[in-house]
Amino acid sequence: MTSPAAAVGAIVEAAGPRVPELLGEVEERLAELARGHGPVLAEHAGATIAAGGKRLRPLLVLLAAGPPADDADDVVRAAVAVELVHSATLVHDDVLDAADLRRGRPTVWASAGRDMAIAVGDLLFSRAFAELALTGSLDAIRSLSRASTALAEGELRQREDAWDPGVSVARYLERCELKTAALFEAACELGAQHGTPGAARALGAFGRGIGLAFQLLDDVLDVSGPPERTGKPRGTDLLDGTVTLPLILARERDPALRELDLRAIDGPAAAAEVCDRVAATGALQEARRRALALVADAKTALPRDALAAGQLAALELVADSVVDRYS
Amino acid sequence: MTSPAAAVGAIVEAAGPRVPELLGEVEERLAELARGHGPVLAEHAGATIAAGGKRLRPLLVLLAAGPPADDADDVVRAAVAVELVHSATLVHDDVLDAADLRRGRPTVWASAGRDMAIAVGDLLFSRAFAELALTGSLDAIRSLSRASTALAEGELRQREDAWDPGVSVARYLERCELKTAALFEAACELGAQHGTPGAARALGAFGRGIGLAFQLLDDVLDVSGPPERTGKPRGTDLLDGTVTLPLILARERDPALRELDLRAIDGPAAAAEVCDRVAATGALQEARRRALALVADAKTALPRDALAAGQLAALELVADSVVDRYS
Repeated sequence: MTSPAAAVGAIVEAAGPRVPELLGEVEERLAELARGHGPVLAEHAGATIAAGGKRLRPLLVLLAAGPPADDADDVVRAAVAVELVHSATLVHDDVLDAADLRRGRPTVWASAGRDMAIAVGDLLFSRAFAELALTGSLDAIRSLSRASTALAEGELRQREDAWDPGVSVARYLERCELKTAALFEAACELGAQHGTPGAARALGAFGRGIGLAFQLLDDVLDVSGPPERTGKPRGTDLLDGTVTLPLILARERDPALRELDLRAIDGPAAAAEVCDRVAATGALQEARRRALALVADAKTALPRDALAAGQLAALELVADSVVDRYS
Repeated sequence: MTSPAAAVGAIVEAAGPRVPELLGEVEERLAELARGHGPVLAEHAGATIAAGGKRLRPLLVLLAAGPPADDADDVVRAAVAVELVHSATLVHDDVLDAADLRRGRPTVWASAGRDMAIAVGDLLFSRAFAELALTGSLDAIRSLSRASTALAEGELRQREDAWDPGVSVARYLERCELKTAALFEAACELGAQHGTPGAARALGAFGRGIGLAFQLLDDVLDVSGPPERTGKPRGTDLLDGTVTLPLILARERDPALRELDLRAIDGPAAAAEVCDRVAATGALQEARRRALALVADAKTALPRDALAAGQLAALELVADSVVDRYS
């Protein structure tokens, strides 16, 4: 397995020296926005943004934009806007999940309470649109508002389907499209908006594909663990009633699992046991196989002719990094 | 006192028959959006939107736009977007306040739980920007994102200042600008955006003024009651640590109130007693006087030359209705 840091390093190498420079500008702008709303927000939004992880979505914006031209400022703003929407979602998700830690740091929910977390999320969200409006691109606003609508709809869908083990694969995939793939798609569209419409569409589809794979593999990881790598016990999805692909596939393979009452899973030990039963059906391999196929399709669909050589290589490496994280 | 319904009737009469027609289109579009995201959202978003009250903000958009021209569809979309942001805020506020009822109906928080309420708020919020993007106006997006940033910042400010009786009048007014006046201002700006920049600015200032007055009077009402009119016990702000103008002014007038420990107010009876002490200082009259002055200033600042006669009369009536509600 390649470490995430090494993977990002290789991506940056392929894409050329301007990418780390622009990523640095994204970080600076995010920090500036976090500071710009008084000390309370600075603390909590700053912590959220700092805990944001690998900056995969801003990276997609920059890579989809290709070799930087005159509009580098707008590309940075678009990358910032996408990351702000992502951060807003994380803050609200942590409230929904009553999560204490995210990437080893206390969540806003844990450190400042529910009220602050809701308000911080709303603020980050609003700032995203304010930031994007600075680019003067209505297409960009449309892309991002479509994605953020999808995110919220996916969250609702997840609550709606909670505790229902009869959720179909199709419905599960639809939820993943809403919850995860839509923002990856928007990131690529925002980056590509100054290219041809055909290339922008193709890059959007690439983003959607790897976003979907990202979510599938995340759901596999929740079942497979190991906890020392994921930082959380196995089966947390089961415990909050979220039915994901591994369980759906396992139920098709093991009739006994169809009798399972999700609400009867009463703690981490019982959840881990169900995870073992799911794994025993081969459902994890099947889910992983589907995710890999999505990534392969996404790479194939990249508009090669419209991309610079380094840009193509970097985008393929991003796609691989989604898989590598889990291999 | 004029009843709110009668006041709205007079406004509509002054503004001409197209205004009720367009308000009807706003309602239809809001209902359509509520239905467009599956049955769960339809139920909860529908209830929120239906409970939205007097549609003061959409009315301001329509009135600021003046006699409808070719762009009536865009004006309706802008009115819808403003109301969606307002509704999103209400849903999240009800989570923050753990409020069971809003305008006599169960809140989303009460009927569907915290998680659903956060997601519904996020969705309404995203839809607002999607709706506004359909108008093709970047200025409109900028106005609304500025206002929704302000709303969230105001909410944060309120949490930040909670339980601090030493909050200054200036800081209190700043919070009201963020929490309330900014969206009234945006409503007027969005309506006026096809007029001259000068008229749009003047109408924005009018909106800000009456929005500020609206919040001041709301805060007076929390102290004055009576509960049978406000639908809530007196002193709810005191109980959640929100320091408003009546208390700030009363502390200047009554040294004994300066010793008051807000956290020692342990229930509605104690809160009502503090309300009586605040009222006894004359602080309510002073706060009301300030609000009336704001409304008078707002009316004076209306760009008379740029407005149709009915439009001017209707906007003045809206300003009066903010006051009438409390007289």
